[in-house]
Amino acid sequence: MLNAAPEPGLTAARQQAVVAALLAVLPARCVLSDAEDTRPYECDGLAAYRQLPMVVTLPDTEEQVIAILGVCRELGVPIVPRGAGTGLSGGALPIADGVVLSTARLNRIVRLDAYARTAVVQPGVRNLAISEAAAPHALYYAPDPSSQIACSIGGNVAENSGGVHCLKYGLTVHNVLRVRVVTIDGDVLELGGECLDSPGLDLLAVFIGSEGMLGIVTEVTVKLIPKPATARVIMASFGDVVTGGNAVANVIAAGIIPAGLEMMDQTSSRMVEPFVKAGYDTDAAAILLCEADGTHEEVEEEIARMTAVLEGAGASAIAVSQSEAERMKFWSGRKNAFPAAGRISPDYYCMDGTIPRKRLAEVLTGIAAMETTHGLRCANVFHAGDGNLHPLILFDANKPGEFERAEAFGADILALCVAVGGTITGEHGVGMEKINSMCVQFTRAELDAFFAVKRAFDPHALLNPDKAIPTLNRCAEFGKMHVTAGRLPFANLPRF
Amino acid sequence: MLNAAPEPGLTAARQQAVVAALLAVLPARCVLSDAEDTRPYECDGLAAYRQLPMVVTLPDTEEQVIAILGVCRELGVPIVPRGAGTGLSGGALPIADGVVLSTARLNRIVRLDAYARTAVVQPGVRNLAISEAAAPHALYYAPDPSSQIACSIGGNVAENSGGVHCLKYGLTVHNVLRVRVVTIDGDVLELGGECLDSPGLDLLAVFIGSEGMLGIVTEVTVKLIPKPATARVIMASFGDVVTGGNAVANVIAAGIIPAGLEMMDQTSSRMVEPFVKAGYDTDAAAILLCEADGTHEEVEEEIARMTAVLEGAGASAIAVSQSEAERMKFWSGRKNAFPAAGRISPDYYCMDGTIPRKRLAEVLTGIAAMETTHGLRCANVFHAGDGNLHPLILFDANKPGEFERAEAFGADILALCVAVGGTITGEHGVGMEKINSMCVQFTRAELDAFFAVKRAFDPHALLNPDKAIPTLNRCAEFGKMHVTAGRLPFANLPRF
Repeated sequence: MLNAAPEPGLTAARQQAVVAALLAVLPARCVLSDAEDTRPYECDGLAAYRQLPMVVTLPDTEEQVIAILGVCRELGVPIVPRGAGTGLSGGALPIADGVVLSTARLNRIVRLDAYARTAVVQPGVRNLAISEAAAPHALYYAPDPSSQIACSIGGNVAENSGGVHCLKYGLTVHNVLRVRVVTIDGDVLELGGECLDSPGLDLLAVFIGSEGMLGIVTEVTVKLIPKPATARVIMASFGDVVTGGNAVANVIAAGIIPAGLEMMDQTSSRMVEPFVKAGYDTDAAAILLCEADGTHEEVEEEIARMTAVLEGAGASAIAVSQSEAERMKFWSGRKNAFPAAGRISPDYYCMDGTIPRKRLAEVLTGIAAMETTHGLRCANVFHAGDGNLHPLILFDANKPGEFERAEAFGADILALCVAVGGTITGEHGVGMEKINSMCVQFTRAELDAFFAVKRAFDPHALLNPDKAIPTLNRCAEFGKMHVTAGRLPFANLPRF
Repeated sequence: MLNAAPEPGLTAARQQAVVAALLAVLPARCVLSDAEDTRPYECDGLAAYRQLPMVVTLPDTEEQVIAILGVCRELGVPIVPRGAGTGLSGGALPIADGVVLSTARLNRIVRLDAYARTAVVQPGVRNLAISEAAAPHALYYAPDPSSQIACSIGGNVAENSGGVHCLKYGLTVHNVLRVRVVTIDGDVLELGGECLDSPGLDLLAVFIGSEGMLGIVTEVTVKLIPKPATARVIMASFGDVVTGGNAVANVIAAGIIPAGLEMMDQTSSRMVEPFVKAGYDTDAAAILLCEADGTHEEVEEEIARMTAVLEGAGASAIAVSQSEAERMKFWSGRKNAFPAAGRISPDYYCMDGTIPRKRLAEVLTGIAAMETTHGLRCANVFHAGDGNLHPLILFDANKPGEFERAEAFGADILALCVAVGGTITGEHGVGMEKINSMCVQFTRAELDAFFAVKRAFDPHALLNPDKAIPTLNRCAEFGKMHVTAGRLPFANLPRF
C-alpha cells in the first residue's frame, strides 16, 4: 500500500498554518483535519492507493470555493478536487501536504426546465438524482456510468463519464451544455451555453474530462432527453468470442445504433449468473446484450433488424425481453459484473482500454492467449459498441507474485490496445493510475500542448498536480515516448 | 470599402524580404505576390471588407506548411489561414503585411474506410466531395452548410460549420474524430482519435471552431454515416410567424428530432418562389420544412407524428413530399434563399444570431417590429430547430443612409438575441465582423481565458491575429463588456 506521508513534524506545522488560514474564511464545519475525519477521503474507487490529505474542505457555496482557492493560492497548497469518490483511476487520490476540495455539499438542483429540457445542478448532485428529478416530466439525463447511483455530476464532468447507453446518447461532453467554473485566480467563468454553439474557443469541451486540473466546477447545465416510450433488449449467444466480436461490427456496419451494445464472455456470465440470476446463457462462449429504444414501431423494427444481423453473424441462440421486468433482469447481470467479480476472486484489476470496433475479435483472442501466459483468469465484460474494453483480471493479492502478474497482464492488454490503434483509457480517466501510459500514447509535442493549456489555467500547478498528464521528465524517467507497439513497462508503476 | 494598406514603400521592402525567404523553402508556384495574383484572395464571403495581402502561399504538402510557418515565425509575419474563402464573417480577411496560407492545394482524400466508416482527408477537400467519395458505400458526411459544394473541410473545422441537418446529426465538432495540425512552432499534433474518447485534454474540440487562431490543420478524419434509406419532408403553412415559431417548439417538445427543421417567412418564400419554383405556399405568413429520415417505417411513423403536432399547433395547410424529386424541390427554395435575396435586392446583410428555441416566436415578432423602425425589409429564413436565425436585411448600399440603417437593424437583432439568452453567432463564426459583439457576450475573465489558451498555442500572436477574440483594450475602446441587454453599439464597426 502506498503511504507517502512526509515527516510528521513538518506536516503538523504546515497543517496548522493552512487550517488556520482556512478557518479564517470558512465555517468550522467546512474544514476537516483530524486523521479520523480525513480518513474517508484517503482514496477513491482505486482503493489500492491511499494517502491521508493534510486537510479536507467541504464548501457549501461558490463563495467558499473561491475562498478556499484563495487560501491555497496564497500559501502554495496543492488542491485535489473530489466528487463522490467513485472514480477508478485515482484522480481524487489526496496529496500529503494538499487540500482535498470535496463538492459533496454543493448538492442542490438549482432548476429544472422541462420545456427547454435542461437542468441546472450543483456539482455534488448525484447522476441518478437528476434523472429522478426529471422523471415526472418523462425526461432523463442520458449518461449512466455503472456508479450512477453514487457518482456526482461534477465527477462525471471531470472524467467525461459514459455508460452503457453512450453509444447512442453520447458521453458527458455530449450531454452538458454549460459549466460554471472557478479558476485558481478566483475568477468565475461561464463556459458553453444553452444555444447550439457558443462563440469563442470551446473551453467547455476542454473542461469536460480535464480531471480537476483546470478549475473547480460549481454549476452544471445538462441536457435532458425524453424517456423513450419503450425499450427491449436482445440477448444473443455465441459459440466463440471471435464470432461475437464480429457480430458487434456487423450490427454497426448495418447502420444500426443500438441504445446499448454490451458483451460478456463466459467467465463473466458464469461469474454473474449465480449471484444475479439474470437468465444468462452460461453455455455460450460470449453473450451480447443489444438494446433498442424509441417508439413501439421503432423498437419492433430495430429488434427485427438486429435479430436478422445477429443470426446472420452466427448467433447460436437469441432471446428478446418480453417485458420491462425481463429487460431489467437482462441488464442486472451486466450492471453487477464488478461486484460479482469481488465474490469469486479476492481481488480484481479493471482495465479500460478502447479499440477501434473492427479489431474487437482480434483483441479478445489476444487477451484469451494472455490468460495462459500470465496464469490468471480475465473476465471480459464491456461496452462492445464503443470498443471500450473492461477486462477484469482476477487475482489474489495474498498469493506471492499474483499482483505483479496481474499488473503485467494489464500492461500487455493496454499495449495490445495501443498497437491496434486504440487508447489506454476509455472512460475511467488517467488519474494517477495510467499516467505513465500517457507517455506511450502521446508525443512530446502533444504532451507539451496539454501542459501549455494546463498552465494557461493553472500557472503554479496547484490543481490536481501530477495527475492525468505526465511531465516530460516523468516520461524521460519512464523511458518511453510514443512507442505505439510492444510491451508497456506498466510494471514500473509504484508498488502497492 | 475598407482598404488599410500601409505606406507603399514600407510594404515593398518588407514584401521582398518575406517573398525571398519563402522562395528559399518553397517552389515558385506556391508563392504569389503580384497584386493581380493576390487579388482573388482579398476577401472571403464577407465581400464588403477587402484587403490585399502581402503574399499568398499555396502549400502542396505538410512539410511546406511547416516551412511557411517557420519563415513567418522567424520574420514575425502574421498568417491568415484560408480554406475555400466562403466564410461569412471575414475570418479569412487578409492583413496588409501578412501572409495568406491557402489550403486549396491540400486537396487529397487520403483514404476512406467504409467498414470503420471514416474518411481521412486533407483540409482543402470540399465538403461535398467527401460525400461523393463515400456515396458508392451508401455513406455520407453529415454537416451540410449551404456552401457545401464549394467550402472545404478545413474551413468547416475552423468555423465549426453546421447546416440544415445539424439538429439531428450535429455540427462539425460532432462529426470530426481527429485532426492533424501544425503549430506555429512547427510541431505536428494528432488531436482526437478514432476511439470513443481520447485521454488528456480535449484539444480536438478547442481546434474545431478556433477560426485559424491556434494552428494549421493538415489532415482531418471525419465520421461517415449511412445514407438513410429514405427521407420525406413536410411543408407546413402558418397564418402568422408566432404560430409557426411555437410549432417548432412543439415539435421538439414532442420528443421528435427531425432531420431538418427550417422556417421561412413570407418575405423569403415570395423572394424565392419566382426564382426556384419550389412549390411554396406564398400566401402563408410562414412555412416550416420538417424532414424525417431513416428506414421506411421510421419515416412514415415520424411524418405521421410531426403532422399531428403541426396540425395541433395550428398549421393552415400541410403538404408531404411524395417523391425524392419533390423532396429536393421543397429544399431547393431553402438552399437558394441567399442567391434569391441577391435577385430582389441590390444588397443584403445576413445575421447569424442564435436563441433558445422557446423564444423563437417572441424574437420573430421583435424583428417584424424592427422592419418598421428601420424602414427596411428583413427576410427570415433559418435553422428553426436549432434556434439559429439568419435574418437577411435587404438594402441598397447606393441609397444614402441605407447601409447604416441595415447595420443598426442588425445590431438590434443581435441585442435581442443576447437579451433572450442567445448568442451573437451560431455557425458563421466571429471573424472580424462580430469581434466587437464578443465584448458584449463575454466577461473580462472569460475573454482572458480565451486569450490564455490562444497564447498557449501562439505566444507571439501570429495566427490570424485580431480575429475572433477581442483584446481587452479593444473592448475598453468599444466601451462594452458583458452587457446582456440593451442595444449593442454595433454601428461602431468600421464603415464600408
